[in-house]
Amino acid sequence: MAQRDATHDLARKSWVASANTPGTDFPVQNLPLGVFSTDGAAPRCGVAIGDQVLDLKAAHGAGLVSNPAAAANSLGPLMTEGRRASAALRAEVSALLSEGAPSRTDLLVPMAAARMHLPTTVRNFSDFMASYDHCARLGVRRDPKNPLPQAFRQLPVAYHSRASSVRVSGEAITRPHGQWQRQDGTMHFGPTEAMDYELEMAVWIAGDNAIGEPVPMSSAPDRIFGYGLLNDWSVRDVQRWEMPPLGPFLGKSVSTSVSAWIVTAEALAPFEVPAPAQEPPALPYLDSAWNRSNGALAVRMTAAILTPRMRSEGAAPFVLTDTQFAGMYWTAATMVAHHASNGCNLLAGDLLGSGTVSGPEETARACLAEIGLTGAVTLPNGETRRWIQDGDEIVFRARAEAPGAVPIGFGECRGVLNPAIAWPA
Amino acid sequence: MAQRDATHDLARKSWVASANTPGTDFPVQNLPLGVFSTDGAAPRCGVAIGDQVLDLKAAHGAGLVSNPAAAANSLGPLMTEGRRASAALRAEVSALLSEGAPSRTDLLVPMAAARMHLPTTVRNFSDFMASYDHCARLGVRRDPKNPLPQAFRQLPVAYHSRASSVRVSGEAITRPHGQWQRQDGTMHFGPTEAMDYELEMAVWIAGDNAIGEPVPMSSAPDRIFGYGLLNDWSVRDVQRWEMPPLGPFLGKSVSTSVSAWIVTAEALAPFEVPAPAQEPPALPYLDSAWNRSNGALAVRMTAAILTPRMRSEGAAPFVLTDTQFAGMYWTAATMVAHHASNGCNLLAGDLLGSGTVSGPEETARACLAEIGLTGAVTLPNGETRRWIQDGDEIVFRARAEAPGAVPIGFGECRGVLNPAIAWPA
Repeated sequence: MAQRDATHDLARKSWVASANTPGTDFPVQNLPLGVFSTDGAAPRCGVAIGDQVLDLKAAHGAGLVSNPAAAANSLGPLMTEGRRASAALRAEVSALLSEGAPSRTDLLVPMAAARMHLPTTVRNFSDFMASYDHCARLGVRRDPKNPLPQAFRQLPVAYHSRASSVRVSGEAITRPHGQWQRQDGTMHFGPTEAMDYELEMAVWIAGDNAIGEPVPMSSAPDRIFGYGLLNDWSVRDVQRWEMPPLGPFLGKSVSTSVSAWIVTAEALAPFEVPAPAQEPPALPYLDSAWNRSNGALAVRMTAAILTPRMRSEGAAPFVLTDTQFAGMYWTAATMVAHHASNGCNLLAGDLLGSGTVSGPEETARACLAEIGLTGAVTLPNGETRRWIQDGDEIVFRARAEAPGAVPIGFGECRGVLNPAIAWPA
Repeated sequence: MAQRDATHDLARKSWVASANTPGTDFPVQNLPLGVFSTDGAAPRCGVAIGDQVLDLKAAHGAGLVSNPAAAANSLGPLMTEGRRASAALRAEVSALLSEGAPSRTDLLVPMAAARMHLPTTVRNFSDFMASYDHCARLGVRRDPKNPLPQAFRQLPVAYHSRASSVRVSGEAITRPHGQWQRQDGTMHFGPTEAMDYELEMAVWIAGDNAIGEPVPMSSAPDRIFGYGLLNDWSVRDVQRWEMPPLGPFLGKSVSTSVSAWIVTAEALAPFEVPAPAQEPPALPYLDSAWNRSNGALAVRMTAAILTPRMRSEGAAPFVLTDTQFAGMYWTAATMVAHHASNGCNLLAGDLLGSGTVSGPEETARACLAEIGLTGAVTLPNGETRRWIQDGDEIVFRARAEAPGAVPIGFGECRGVLNPAIAWPA
């Protein structure tokens, strides 16, 4: 759990001028962590501030950041140390970057010159399905009377997903080959005809629990290092065919894109809101007073598309989804507690996906499978889309907003779909 | 693909006397790889030979093994180098340990004094369901007319499973807590009442394919580093409740046990047999002439139980399952090719589980869920078992046998079930 403190103060400004621009994702109240490199140099940890990156390795070398973990080439060591270490780092970085402190422009790298990397090697990736509206909309096709998974109201439904194919925002995706049965019963193997996105929140894990040792709800919040955006690229024709009864496999392991910046749990303290009421109430192992009052986060999330024609026309990405993370039926803390309830060891650097963040509004359908239930989308230039086409780029953005707090952003999670390869001979 | 060569010769003996004892798992024709340590020393790679372990680090230091990867503290580097490297290592080790070579007892450690470790950090773990008989038996309860998963005859059905909880043989398992719905509709959270084993073959991956690059059937065999035993501990009450529609999650992530010794693909060359006929024929991306003629392996596998009372009575483990790996509907090569067919990157050190190796015989039911379809098992001392009880130990063994070849064994994969912990306050 994180407390609201002086690092969140409305009046706080930075000596980095771009961090004070209204609408920036990265004011001094945010301070998200990532891993970057510049020409030829090794990857190192950094903090996003306005349109700059604070080089944490250099800041550590200058004696302005005390924890050697900040000088590592990934966020793994800091994640292993856990929330106390990341909170202490935040306090130091906030002091270093705030107005009144000496301007240390020598420690800054322009974001435009930084290449971003995965924050850490993803150890394990588990993907949840925590949105009532996502399940209800898509489940109606399967069973109009019982659209929800049987356990949906009792536990955060999830599956183990693929860690090796998690990639950082900006890397292109290749249209995959796959197998499915055509409606006439014949079998087909070839490039997918139903490529989709799923707009999700990424939850990065701090610290380890030993195998056999559950994580009770009282300590689950402290296992959350931070949050990011996650595109759970989905291959619908493959998925429908392969799923029964063991769940999605190749429909999900093509690639998973995550945003480069991790917004820490500390930065999000001002945006904690009550979790949605649950009926029936959750079993005790998934319930806590803190979770009921603070377990959800007021984050608005969008997914947009930029087609090749839109790009050539100089158009901005068109928003397909505009949704609220706070509406999810299960919170991140319940995901952690449930996941470890059988003694499964969650490791620092593990990644959880929240599942598609759909809401009740028609504009809050967070994947094309849902949007397409009412037909193809028509874009402003007249193009239509039922599924993602070659060359289309999908762009996620998100922003935490709450009364009395400086809004903070998540940066982007974007990826373009490249055409399928020729199948190897 | 591996060729049968002089390392497999029937007449070949070792200067390690125990390797020449009929019935040993580890004659000089086997040479399985593992990671071991002795009092206080760091883990290092070794080769099982009779009742001894050849210390590969020491052998490399003595100039008898050329590849520095053999001197690493895990098999990861050798797996990364791939099959050419492991084949070259086999040739050197075979020459070093064969009769006629100088006796280098200084390079041996008694197996009884060696503590075994995981062969490498498991990067990703995917579990298949490739036995027709396992699916048919258990599927009948769900749908007597269509017991098989809809895609079963078209692709090797699989799910992403949990890498962090993969453990080496010998480590105890803790009875997990879990949630399920009672038959009267009430919800329950507590220690499982239906703990099961699944007797599977482990397939360890060699080399990497880049994301977006499939592995065609022509190169799939060369991505298989070797084989071992795998107990996919399963929590049936939890699994039944949580599975629809995303598949098993906490029912499978409690622990997965693997045998300590990896029998290399090279060692298994004499035991290659034709894959079972498939109807309908597999799609071309899952078919090759080599797979049809050589894709299966003649390995007999057993699962046995040792209860606390049996232990106190000095009884031997009682065999519950006696089955043949060669009967699996899908081969390991098709698992590799299917897994990578969407461009998913398989990494050196990844682990595949074959799925429960059940056969058509009543004695070849390879988990208690199947065995229990005809009631609880009665053990020789009169005890009965529907599910695994506290203190029970499950012991897997396996042996490759073929005409004209020296039989080779897999060692053991064993684990005892400890009682559930008190739920943390």
